[in-house]
Amino acid sequence: MSASDAADVPVDHSGLRVMSTEECMERLSRAGLGRLGFVLAGEVTVLPVHHLVHGMELYFRTSGGSKIEAAADHSAVGFEIDDYDRATVTGWSVSVSGTASLVDDEQLAEELAGLDDAPWPGGDPSDSVWVRIRPDQISGRELLPH
Amino acid sequence: MSASDAADVPVDHSGLRVMSTEECMERLSRAGLGRLGFVLAGEVTVLPVHHLVHGMELYFRTSGGSKIEAAADHSAVGFEIDDYDRATVTGWSVSVSGTASLVDDEQLAEELAGLDDAPWPGGDPSDSVWVRIRPDQISGRELLPH
Repeated sequence: MSASDAADVPVDHSGLRVMSTEECMERLSRAGLGRLGFVLAGEVTVLPVHHLVHGMELYFRTSGGSKIEAAADHSAVGFEIDDYDRATVTGWSVSVSGTASLVDDEQLAEELAGLDDAPWPGGDPSDSVWVRIRPDQISGRELLPH
Repeated sequence: MSASDAADVPVDHSGLRVMSTEECMERLSRAGLGRLGFVLAGEVTVLPVHHLVHGMELYFRTSGGSKIEAAADHSAVGFEIDDYDRATVTGWSVSVSGTASLVDDEQLAEELAGLDDAPWPGGDPSDSVWVRIRPDQISGRELLPH
C-alpha cells in the first residue's frame, strides 16, 4: 500500500479503520447473530439475539413474557456484531445505538417470518414477538493489518 | 445419554442448558474478548473489549477520555461472551450484569498489566485506564444437541 492509499483510509484516534454507514449495514445484513444491550430496573444486560435487517431497521424475535420483551417498549438499546481472530490479530465490530419497540403489525410480522430463513432454535415461534430496533447511531471499526 | 442423565441437566423455559456460576466464571477466564454494554446520556452502547478475570471480577483497559471511561464511574454495565456455530447449531453464552468502576490502585493496575499476556492492539497503554466490573448477576446458557 502506497502512502497516498493509506491516507485515503479513515482512521480513529486508536488507529482503527472507520467504516461507512453503508458498510456497517451490509455487515449487519450478513451477520446472523448479534448482541443486544438493554436496561431493565436499572440493570444492564447484554444477550445474544438472532437478527435480520429489513430496510434500515433491525429485527429479532423473542419469547413472549421475556426480559427482552419488557425492555422493548420504546427503550434505548444497543446492538453489536463483531468478528475477531486472536491468532492473526484481525477483526472488526459494528455498534448500533437506537430505540426498540414491539412489532404489532401482523402483516410485517409475517413478512419478517418469511425473511427469516434460519430461525434460531429454542422457544416456540407461536409464543414469540418481533422486536424492531430503529438505529440512531451506527459505527463500525476494523483493525488494520500491522 | 440415558433418560436419567438427561434429567440431571438443568434447562430453562427455552430448553437451553443452564450453566453453574463456576462454569460461567471458567468460560469468562478463557475468553479473551467480550462485549460491554453501558449507558451514557440515555443511550445504550455495546462495544467489544479485551478482558481478563482476576478473583471474582472482570477487568479491561480503555483509553483515557473515552466514552467507556465516562460510563465507568460506578455505573450499571452488562458484559457478554458467546460462541456460536450456525452450521452445527451449537453454541453458548455467558451474561454478566454488574457495576463498573475505575481502578485507581496503582499496585493493582500493575498486577493486571502483568496478567495481560496479550494486550489488544490500538491505543497507547500509557494513555489507558483499567476498569473493574463487579458482577451482581452471572448466567450462562448452552444450546443442547438436537
